[in-house]
Amino acid sequence: MKKEYHKKDFPVAQIRKFLEPGPIVLVSSHYKGKDNIMTMGWHTVMEFSPSLIGCMITGSNHSFHMIKESGECVINIPTFDMIDTVIGIGNTRGSEIDKFKEFKLTAAQSIEVKAPLIKECFANFECKVVDDQLLSKYNFFVMEIVKAHVATSPKYPKTIHYRGEGKFMISGRTLDYSSQFKPEML
Amino acid sequence: MKKEYHKKDFPVAQIRKFLEPGPIVLVSSHYKGKDNIMTMGWHTVMEFSPSLIGCMITGSNHSFHMIKESGECVINIPTFDMIDTVIGIGNTRGSEIDKFKEFKLTAAQSIEVKAPLIKECFANFECKVVDDQLLSKYNFFVMEIVKAHVATSPKYPKTIHYRGEGKFMISGRTLDYSSQFKPEML
Repeated sequence: MKKEYHKKDFPVAQIRKFLEPGPIVLVSSHYKGKDNIMTMGWHTVMEFSPSLIGCMITGSNHSFHMIKESGECVINIPTFDMIDTVIGIGNTRGSEIDKFKEFKLTAAQSIEVKAPLIKECFANFECKVVDDQLLSKYNFFVMEIVKAHVATSPKYPKTIHYRGEGKFMISGRTLDYSSQFKPEML
Repeated sequence: MKKEYHKKDFPVAQIRKFLEPGPIVLVSSHYKGKDNIMTMGWHTVMEFSPSLIGCMITGSNHSFHMIKESGECVINIPTFDMIDTVIGIGNTRGSEIDKFKEFKLTAAQSIEVKAPLIKECFANFECKVVDDQLLSKYNFFVMEIVKAHVATSPKYPKTIHYRGEGKFMISGRTLDYSSQFKPEML
């Protein structure tokens, strides 16, 4: 059975908590009346405020063109219970199938963008493309997260981290070492 | 006691195996006769071949200027047994102390760059800055990994993934789902 999360608005300047550890994410997009989803592992936080994310999306992906043309997407964080869905999405083409339908996912309405949220994911970050200087050379988008929705529980879900060759690392324990930090470094 | 790794050359086009899961890394640099080390969590793989990495380094870091001026660095992957060292490096300034000496780390010679390898780390990736288009606006470097050295064992070490606020996620199990992938997606 799929999880039902209760989500709340989350401060966009604090999303590093979820993205910096490096999970694979599902990117949903919307263009010319159609929705699509892709998996993405090549992303990094770039700034707290504005809340910037950089990501590389292969040009042969159907989603690449949808995001480039619409200038928008949603970054959704799936959890370990969704691993079959994550693999399925990565192994199919949005030009051939409706991924929301195929994988029985729920497209929920975003607030700031037209791309849909994936309801079954733990967190959803609505994004707008803000810089395309590195797009032609590296397929690299700089995006601003303009709205974040995060499940209130669990605090740290089991996320999926890709190693290539069909292998995934599953997130382990979270440990608090804040007492060893200088206050100004926290 | 610190670990002693036996390392081998590793194909630079395959380093995503270690960096895509999102570990915090130690970046070593060399400029004007001095070495330095910083911690870095904001990085992403950008291409297999050439082997490209993108990373954001705060301008107030002493290492930022050393890497910008020398055009080189080494990305080193520390393991969980080094967490006190990782925190210590992140909480001190290279302009004030010699981090190799302070944290009893061994600076080993690189092959392709002048920046030293950190011997105690599981993997070392020698890097050259290849694109600085996003440097002035975002402090974002595009680097090419020109040489990689990786420990022959263990296959998947316990890596450290930063969540901010002094909290770290420690890498969990690696699971093989390659049988669920289409061959061309592997």
